[in-house]
Amino acid sequence: MSHPHPDLQLPGPLAPGALRIVPLGGLGEVGRNMTVFEYDGKLLIIDCGVLFPEDHQPGVDLILPDFDYISDRLNDIEAIVLTHGHEDHIGAVPYLLRLRRDIPLVGSQLTLAFLEAKLKEHRITPNLQPVSEGQRRKFGAFDLEFVAVNHSIPDALAVAVRTPAGSILHTGDFKMDQLPLDGRITDLRAFARLGEEGIDLFMVDSTNAEVPGFTVAEREIGPVLDGVFTRADGRIVVASFSSHVHRVQQVLDAANAHGRRVALVGRSMVRNMTIAAELGYLHVPDGVLIDVKKIDDLPDDRVVLMCTGSQGEPMAALSRIANRDHRVSVGPGDTVILASSLIPGNENAVFRIINGLIRLGAKVVHQSNARVHVSGHASAGELLYCYNIVRPKNVMPVHGEIRHLVANGALAVSTGVPPERVVLAEDGVVVDLIKGKARIAGAVPCGYVYVDGSSVGGVTEAELKDRRILGEEGFISIFAVVDSSTGKVVSGPQLHARGVAEDDAKLAEIVPELTKALSEATAGGTADTHQLQQVIRRVVGRWASTRLRRRPMIIPVVVEA
Amino acid sequence: MSHPHPDLQLPGPLAPGALRIVPLGGLGEVGRNMTVFEYDGKLLIIDCGVLFPEDHQPGVDLILPDFDYISDRLNDIEAIVLTHGHEDHIGAVPYLLRLRRDIPLVGSQLTLAFLEAKLKEHRITPNLQPVSEGQRRKFGAFDLEFVAVNHSIPDALAVAVRTPAGSILHTGDFKMDQLPLDGRITDLRAFARLGEEGIDLFMVDSTNAEVPGFTVAEREIGPVLDGVFTRADGRIVVASFSSHVHRVQQVLDAANAHGRRVALVGRSMVRNMTIAAELGYLHVPDGVLIDVKKIDDLPDDRVVLMCTGSQGEPMAALSRIANRDHRVSVGPGDTVILASSLIPGNENAVFRIINGLIRLGAKVVHQSNARVHVSGHASAGELLYCYNIVRPKNVMPVHGEIRHLVANGALAVSTGVPPERVVLAEDGVVVDLIKGKARIAGAVPCGYVYVDGSSVGGVTEAELKDRRILGEEGFISIFAVVDSSTGKVVSGPQLHARGVAEDDAKLAEIVPELTKALSEATAGGTADTHQLQQVIRRVVGRWASTRLRRRPMIIPVVVEA
Repeated sequence: MSHPHPDLQLPGPLAPGALRIVPLGGLGEVGRNMTVFEYDGKLLIIDCGVLFPEDHQPGVDLILPDFDYISDRLNDIEAIVLTHGHEDHIGAVPYLLRLRRDIPLVGSQLTLAFLEAKLKEHRITPNLQPVSEGQRRKFGAFDLEFVAVNHSIPDALAVAVRTPAGSILHTGDFKMDQLPLDGRITDLRAFARLGEEGIDLFMVDSTNAEVPGFTVAEREIGPVLDGVFTRADGRIVVASFSSHVHRVQQVLDAANAHGRRVALVGRSMVRNMTIAAELGYLHVPDGVLIDVKKIDDLPDDRVVLMCTGSQGEPMAALSRIANRDHRVSVGPGDTVILASSLIPGNENAVFRIINGLIRLGAKVVHQSNARVHVSGHASAGELLYCYNIVRPKNVMPVHGEIRHLVANGALAVSTGVPPERVVLAEDGVVVDLIKGKARIAGAVPCGYVYVDGSSVGGVTEAELKDRRILGEEGFISIFAVVDSSTGKVVSGPQLHARGVAEDDAKLAEIVPELTKALSEATAGGTADTHQLQQVIRRVVGRWASTRLRRRPMIIPVVVEA
Repeated sequence: MSHPHPDLQLPGPLAPGALRIVPLGGLGEVGRNMTVFEYDGKLLIIDCGVLFPEDHQPGVDLILPDFDYISDRLNDIEAIVLTHGHEDHIGAVPYLLRLRRDIPLVGSQLTLAFLEAKLKEHRITPNLQPVSEGQRRKFGAFDLEFVAVNHSIPDALAVAVRTPAGSILHTGDFKMDQLPLDGRITDLRAFARLGEEGIDLFMVDSTNAEVPGFTVAEREIGPVLDGVFTRADGRIVVASFSSHVHRVQQVLDAANAHGRRVALVGRSMVRNMTIAAELGYLHVPDGVLIDVKKIDDLPDDRVVLMCTGSQGEPMAALSRIANRDHRVSVGPGDTVILASSLIPGNENAVFRIINGLIRLGAKVVHQSNARVHVSGHASAGELLYCYNIVRPKNVMPVHGEIRHLVANGALAVSTGVPPERVVLAEDGVVVDLIKGKARIAGAVPCGYVYVDGSSVGGVTEAELKDRRILGEEGFISIFAVVDSSTGKVVSGPQLHARGVAEDDAKLAEIVPELTKALSEATAGGTADTHQLQQVIRRVVGRWASTRLRRRPMIIPVVVEA
């Protein structure tokens, strides 16, 4: 398999008649999926999502793909295709539209409805181009065909991109549930037909490539929920993803069967399910929904709360319920179901909530003790079917960390794709499809773009490093006022510390030595404020290191007055 | 089951002839295990370990049990029993010995050898009292009997505590591997004999109480390692816990069988395995060990590196190897085995390392794709055997979060222990054993004691909150110098920001408004520095909130000159 070399250079110009593929996100990470296709000077984009920050990116709200590569070619963009409505596929669209408002946004009905709601919050009126499976639409030289795929959100699409340079099939996120709730299966007949026609490059979801076997059907959750509902004699709280229409459907159905009413809890849950119901993707049994304000009017064994926060998000409903900081209370005899995956990195937060709920006396059902979640992605067994049906000439695993991409590439090879025709690219790696062969042509800069409050891109890696130091070690600031005529210290040094875990008495320990050092430095009357800051940094830093065995940020401020 | 009430009060004095049990750590969390037994004014302690901090405790090195409850009764301590040599059972001993050096430390040979090495680093010469399974020793009124148990470290002990108030059996950490590598099984015959005699309170390891079935035998890893070694034609790197003597034994044996030599990498790995080999717990095949400095003299397929860092610790060997920041290099064709669990909370760090190794071209084998780890704790099936063999009068689940304690209690109930005889206590909850009945008698304060650099207990929750704010939001500090005679601002306001992600130009935006506010506040010449700081805090805080949509720490400093 072709690994990208770590020292890749900027690629040369694209050969005439060739197709260039540049992933700007989602390859080498789980999130911010975005791929740019270039043919004859024109661009097509598939997906434009966000990535959620990890611990080493403190304070960051969201991470965007780096738009730098396309920022001076915005008018060459023919369209953005959104494969489905998850945040990691649509979340960065508002930020790209800030650069050019009228880019055509192509997607299925539900995908565009979720996107439109998001854009409304950003006060953007978009240029929406709804499509559906089986349709074929041209955007410039890009001849697109949309193929139904099955995922953990309805109305997901794969997309075939026909160009004079060759044909691509991009799966988007998908699995191959053979008995999905809505009957909308991944269209393997279309995959087969496209394969017969010839797929030059197959871009395949890698998320579950390491998972052996087959992803369990969504409908297997129904009987499990039914069993939990049967045994529950108090309140039932279900937490799941706010876009998982089919999961919510199963909860509504179970509630209806057991004579319970359901209150939707959490802003995104209410918004998304309202959209899904209006468009006919969610079928709400008559009278089953109830306003959360009215649940106290019903006996506990008639109530289900369907809420957000299954990943331990501290401000979401479930966390606040566990902390007794929500209008919905949970107590002994109540049942809480986490009908969701446990995304790596969220374990501590989720288990804190589970412990909180158990401490309140609730019974907690989650994927470790009952099958109340199935994945939205195809496992290794399903991926093998895909490779054998499509029989692509080249393969480029997408959507995943490098471990997922490598595992997916190995699956392709096991079905007979030549190893040298499997391209392992991470974000920014440029792949050219020339005369039926995909090869790595170079790399473009492709950093993290952080959204933090009102700032987009203002947070730098240096800033994050500062935050990590401040967060781990705190800081000591030292103020001194210097008489501008004599150069002598006339006020201070005053020390202030935050997060350093030492009281003022301990800090006072260093003042005599510091005063002496400053007085020596200003003896000739020649020291400038910069030099004095250096003296302070050295004396206080050394003291903290030896006496406190810590390395707080040292912030000297010397002002002249 | 008896849940502790959230509003428990300090307990009354202990009834004459009764036994009091106070867990100071390890109940409601995984780590810092420590339990105090009190009879007739005298104390016995079982275990004294550390807890490792989570993300919301930034910068903290270690967390200790709160010794406050015993700090004025140190001379009443008859002994500390250490059940085995893991950090979460022995790690806090040096800190307790700082309060009283000569407390007798009771444990098995290997446990005391690991403890002694630790105390040497703290320059403490301890009062060691080695014991072994089958022995009976009296410490004051506490008549102790030691029982062999099987765990992920050799030479672990359960302990029976006979007192005039009743008999307790404390399992320590244990599992029931029926074919352990060293043949030293958990002594169920002793459990049975003690049960026949009558166990009034059974304190049972809860770690795996939620895991159904039986923990797989350690020796099942051998053939898996053998298979990986057979297929490996480059270097092999194995990472595991540095105290897991049997795991290392299996690696040494596999290496020996495949004609490879093993270098131990990482300070704790070298130290612990040297001790284990000297005492006969690790059997090093002749000539199999090699100094890490000499590995480059051997062909790659003759080398095994046995190293630390399996939990993603950034300074440990494996992380540095993955980052190419270690004398040991790994590349295409090499194999890395993570022969360890994945402790919740460490997922991101561990997967970052796995991705780094895969990016270097290595094949990575870990518990998700091969059975290269088994747990050290008894699963639900084994715990049921224990309850049925001991048939205790009262049960107190220990070692675990509340979810584990509740699951363990439910197992006890399922074997016929009356629910009201199962005591669910978290840290600080006082349990009295009176006339054969265990009941919750109150609670004592029992906070986290943080070790950070040279400070023990200096880091407060308020300090951690400051760190979290600084780490997420950064700070803006504002300096102004006020003329002490006129009350006017003579220098500043100067703004400095760190971690806020805004440049100086943006910060300058607020200066005119701030200057105006300060000048209004000092117009009458009456404002003091405290009032001016309030003005600064208000103006800058409001600006950051509305304009930056963030809440950095605002640090006003007004000095008079």
